[in-house]
Amino acid sequence: MLKLGSVGSLAALASIAPDGVAEALAQTTQRINPRAQTNDPNQQAIVPKWNVFEITLQGPSSGNPFTEVELTATFALEHRTVAVDGFYDGDGNYKIRFMPDAEGEWSYTTASGAAALDGLKGTFHCGAAAAGAHGPVGVHNTYHFAYADGTPYFPFGTTCYAWVHQSEELQRETLGMLAGAPFNKIRMCVFPKSYAYNHNEPEFYPFERTAGKNDFTRPNPAFFRHLEERIADLCKLGIEADLILFHPYDSWGYAAMPAEADDRYLRYVLARLSAYRNVWWSLANEYDLMKAKTVQDFDRFFHIVEQHDPVGHLRSVHYSVSMYDYGHPWVTHASLQTHDFEAAAGWLKAWRKPVIYDEVMYEGNLERRWGNLTGEELTRRFWLGVMAGCYVTHGETYLDLDHPADESESAILLWSNGGKLKGSSPARIAFLRKLVEETAADSGSSAAGSGLEAGATQYYPNAASMDATGKRPQQIFYYFDIHQPIQYEFPLPEGSFSAEVIDTWAMTIRALPGRFAGKTKLKLLGKPYQAVRFRRVAG
Amino acid sequence: MLKLGSVGSLAALASIAPDGVAEALAQTTQRINPRAQTNDPNQQAIVPKWNVFEITLQGPSSGNPFTEVELTATFALEHRTVAVDGFYDGDGNYKIRFMPDAEGEWSYTTASGAAALDGLKGTFHCGAAAAGAHGPVGVHNTYHFAYADGTPYFPFGTTCYAWVHQSEELQRETLGMLAGAPFNKIRMCVFPKSYAYNHNEPEFYPFERTAGKNDFTRPNPAFFRHLEERIADLCKLGIEADLILFHPYDSWGYAAMPAEADDRYLRYVLARLSAYRNVWWSLANEYDLMKAKTVQDFDRFFHIVEQHDPVGHLRSVHYSVSMYDYGHPWVTHASLQTHDFEAAAGWLKAWRKPVIYDEVMYEGNLERRWGNLTGEELTRRFWLGVMAGCYVTHGETYLDLDHPADESESAILLWSNGGKLKGSSPARIAFLRKLVEETAADSGSSAAGSGLEAGATQYYPNAASMDATGKRPQQIFYYFDIHQPIQYEFPLPEGSFSAEVIDTWAMTIRALPGRFAGKTKLKLLGKPYQAVRFRRVAG
Repeated sequence: MLKLGSVGSLAALASIAPDGVAEALAQTTQRINPRAQTNDPNQQAIVPKWNVFEITLQGPSSGNPFTEVELTATFALEHRTVAVDGFYDGDGNYKIRFMPDAEGEWSYTTASGAAALDGLKGTFHCGAAAAGAHGPVGVHNTYHFAYADGTPYFPFGTTCYAWVHQSEELQRETLGMLAGAPFNKIRMCVFPKSYAYNHNEPEFYPFERTAGKNDFTRPNPAFFRHLEERIADLCKLGIEADLILFHPYDSWGYAAMPAEADDRYLRYVLARLSAYRNVWWSLANEYDLMKAKTVQDFDRFFHIVEQHDPVGHLRSVHYSVSMYDYGHPWVTHASLQTHDFEAAAGWLKAWRKPVIYDEVMYEGNLERRWGNLTGEELTRRFWLGVMAGCYVTHGETYLDLDHPADESESAILLWSNGGKLKGSSPARIAFLRKLVEETAADSGSSAAGSGLEAGATQYYPNAASMDATGKRPQQIFYYFDIHQPIQYEFPLPEGSFSAEVIDTWAMTIRALPGRFAGKTKLKLLGKPYQAVRFRRVAG
Repeated sequence: MLKLGSVGSLAALASIAPDGVAEALAQTTQRINPRAQTNDPNQQAIVPKWNVFEITLQGPSSGNPFTEVELTATFALEHRTVAVDGFYDGDGNYKIRFMPDAEGEWSYTTASGAAALDGLKGTFHCGAAAAGAHGPVGVHNTYHFAYADGTPYFPFGTTCYAWVHQSEELQRETLGMLAGAPFNKIRMCVFPKSYAYNHNEPEFYPFERTAGKNDFTRPNPAFFRHLEERIADLCKLGIEADLILFHPYDSWGYAAMPAEADDRYLRYVLARLSAYRNVWWSLANEYDLMKAKTVQDFDRFFHIVEQHDPVGHLRSVHYSVSMYDYGHPWVTHASLQTHDFEAAAGWLKAWRKPVIYDEVMYEGNLERRWGNLTGEELTRRFWLGVMAGCYVTHGETYLDLDHPADESESAILLWSNGGKLKGSSPARIAFLRKLVEETAADSGSSAAGSGLEAGATQYYPNAASMDATGKRPQQIFYYFDIHQPIQYEFPLPEGSFSAEVIDTWAMTIRALPGRFAGKTKLKLLGKPYQAVRFRRVAG
């Protein structure tokens, strides 16, 4: 008997996805019982490329299966093999998850010290990717990103650290918000969070917990099943889950586990989640504020992730004050906490990898400096980051003192709890994202979606997308930031260009008549936050 | 026969001075012919303290009197003597100017190699200062300024580099503008200027000039008499003339004179202008862009100014990129070109003298980064400077492309040419100046006008004025800059305070009912550019 089923939450969530999204993002997980598998090819499991192929096995439930039973599988396609870790899911159930990244006839064999789990074999057919599924995101063109199928991916993320640890109602509100927002990445913690405006106990704990005491040897499968549902929900919305594996804001003990518990936890997370195509690994939020950890601990964590994630998802770590060395080869991209965009050129040159300004402070009105930017200022930081050839992440922290709840620490702030957007920057971020995505559509070549490259910055921030040669600007942006020139002479490169004057705050684009070449003096708006886009029309 | 007369231009300018100012600022110069002086005390010249006492002598006019005739005078009051340089004013006229700084019977004796100018003696009575005359400005309380009579002086300057070299009509427009503006200091060049939007020939040249050739041995008295009129005009308006003695933007040769011409020029300027109480010496604008000069040249210039200015006016120098060493004992204050206000604390500590951010970019809409700030941004920079315990200078560069003249280089920009104000920052600068001046009125003690001292900056810029003890905050300001907290908990020092919420852009002050002590949480406006002022009411 063949057992194929969609993950329940995906169906449930279809109602909140905008038109087209639910359709485009097909089910991500196929559940297989290998004991029941037939060899009849007409009955064989068909798994779309980049979906989750999942095997469930029955095995020993005595003792502590989490620590006492090892389970792995080797997946093979032609002469290629991929080693995958299985995991214990409670109640005698063991699972192996695998994300096939190539079409064809895959076979697998399990290995375990437990006889019941050892030497099991099976096959499945990996077919064409589902509509809208482009595979995991990886580094592309040194400083940028693309999905595995080559589709450009420009990260425009937001931050909801502890959204999966809020009430079910609030989680659904967050998913509804995300369905209508311009964000395609979300920074979120695995562990619950204890910090300002977020002191609630989570519904699920990551480990067995009795009378406030953790058993770090026993992960809580319900916790992880819930987390996985949320990751699948995000996948349906086309959103990358930038999963934060450790963080310092803790009142339960997860920030100060013994080293062996840390490592076991990582391997458990990797076994459960690596097969989800929309997962990124953020080793920590503000790793340098975790007093029980050293930089060497994080080096070790990176190595564990490298070794036990068969997909090779993106890997980084976020700091508060002391930057991690993003030059290490095991880091795929930088995840910064700063708004020093003038330093970007030096960092890109030194690290030769993408740079995401993951924390540039948030739009809001909190007391704290990091939580009370205007929408104008956060929008400005997005533009500055993009003009620097990098990417920027959103966050929102608005209190409404007319609501009694907001006078206390129980206020619901998007940055930590999720919920509704209140700010003025998201619409402008959507506007910028569209402009950036149009650079990919415009270059119409193998270099499509190679991202923006910062220009010289002696005058005003500017950046260009390159054509197929990789050297000739196809689209050129100038951003005037807080400056308000009424005119400017642009030094255009060879060729002929159309020109548009853009008000990045009012979100208007005014096309200027004519074609422009060489030194081009244009009248501008004479107000802050104006930009100009040149698009190559000939030459 | 006694000859006392007011300087013509002062009378002429009374019409443009606002009510009260003309009256308060009496004539600054008394012209004396010592040959005609009587010894009858009833007929003796009476010079108000800090006015200019001027002697005119007839001497040789053959050869080159500028270089060949030395003239000095020694002024004496009781056991005190002051050495003063005279100067040749053309047509056989020699002059000695002296600013008495103490009341009483002064006597003087001239000395010269020319017999006609040697050994002349005379006396005059220095009486009470004229209404509104407070003497020259000097350093006060290490980091701040006061007039010689102890009246606090808080510099809120503007910039009109070449205003005295424009048409007479435009100069009068500039004086009219200044009469209604909040500025009490003006950065202005002695030499004419040749740079963007300022290419006109001046009416007067500082040296004899024939067919484009300068005779640096012959200063042009008409040039200097004109400059003196303008300095006297400023004095009447209560404005300090921050006189820039050298600058790089030159098309006549003044930026590259031989060293002996530089030194002679300096001594001539010092002899003519030191007696004007509202003069400051700025050795150069952007000294580091003067390719024909070295830092050692400027060291030497400082020494000449120290030695030949009997009043000891304020002395500084302004840079473009390479800062002059403001730690030198001959520099009275720093004159910065930067808007790095976070560095202020370190500079104040290192130099132990006042710091003026004399160029923080300008409000306007030019192409260049330094000339296209919004009014909001320039106002913000004033607040940040003041909260850092320093001072800031204004400048304005607005083009109006609806005017044909503004499409060319003949646009009239306040920053260089003078003229009318167009920007939105001056009204807000006036508002800030009033708040700062109220700190002096409020402390009501010998420490009055000691200026603001920056507080710790880990949260938001803040500063306090101290009471008579010099240690206990009397008024405390918090400035929230671009941040928009909706509430904030202020850590008030011991004592009891009133509180006001200030919108620095809308220029509103809302007093909160009650008195506040200790940790004080206040609701704020939740918008950018808000401030809070606490004033001690008890304790």
